[in-house]
Amino acid sequence: MSFYDVSEIEPKELAEGVKIRVIPGEQMTMVVFSLKNGAPIPEHSHPHEQMGTVMAGKVKMIIDGKEQIVQSGSAWHIPSNVVHSGECLEDDTVVLEVFSPPREDLVKK
Amino acid sequence: MSFYDVSEIEPKELAEGVKIRVIPGEQMTMVVFSLKNGAPIPEHSHPHEQMGTVMAGKVKMIIDGKEQIVQSGSAWHIPSNVVHSGECLEDDTVVLEVFSPPREDLVKK
Repeated sequence: MSFYDVSEIEPKELAEGVKIRVIPGEQMTMVVFSLKNGAPIPEHSHPHEQMGTVMAGKVKMIIDGKEQIVQSGSAWHIPSNVVHSGECLEDDTVVLEVFSPPREDLVKK
Repeated sequence: MSFYDVSEIEPKELAEGVKIRVIPGEQMTMVVFSLKNGAPIPEHSHPHEQMGTVMAGKVKMIIDGKEQIVQSGSAWHIPSNVVHSGECLEDDTVVLEVFSPPREDLVKK
């Protein structure tokens, strides 16, 4: 499929307050996160490179020990295996992230 | 660098009415396009897989012969070497796209 209406993609609940909608690719996976205020992103890392931006709302992100509030107009790059974490700071926050290689774990979830 | 304020990235003018701001990665390149109403995206293809969304405004996109108006809430996936084109339909349109492998041509431009 070429075009997506993101709201029509079946959401998957990753954790309390964290829903994802996944667009699969061959070399990348696009993931749209819908987050509730207070939803935590526990500290983790993965071999997949990650780039993202905020479509709506506000998130505290910590990448490799550096903390920043990200919102509309922010973007970030998380190299392979770099530890990151965060916390959603507003209801109805929407974050778009793209991973490469594909996040097979999220595509199949 | 981990965090970016997209508005602080030096824009490059790709064509009349088409500015890009580039965030380089190892396996991906993120590109934020700022488009004026009427700016054309000439038909082209490239080996890089492409995924994108609209941050603001409206674009007519044609992927592999399928035409759609994309706007906030839309997303798309353009597989490697698939022909695509388009036309911006509103001033102040902002489109975010991610490519893999990296678009060295845009990073170095």
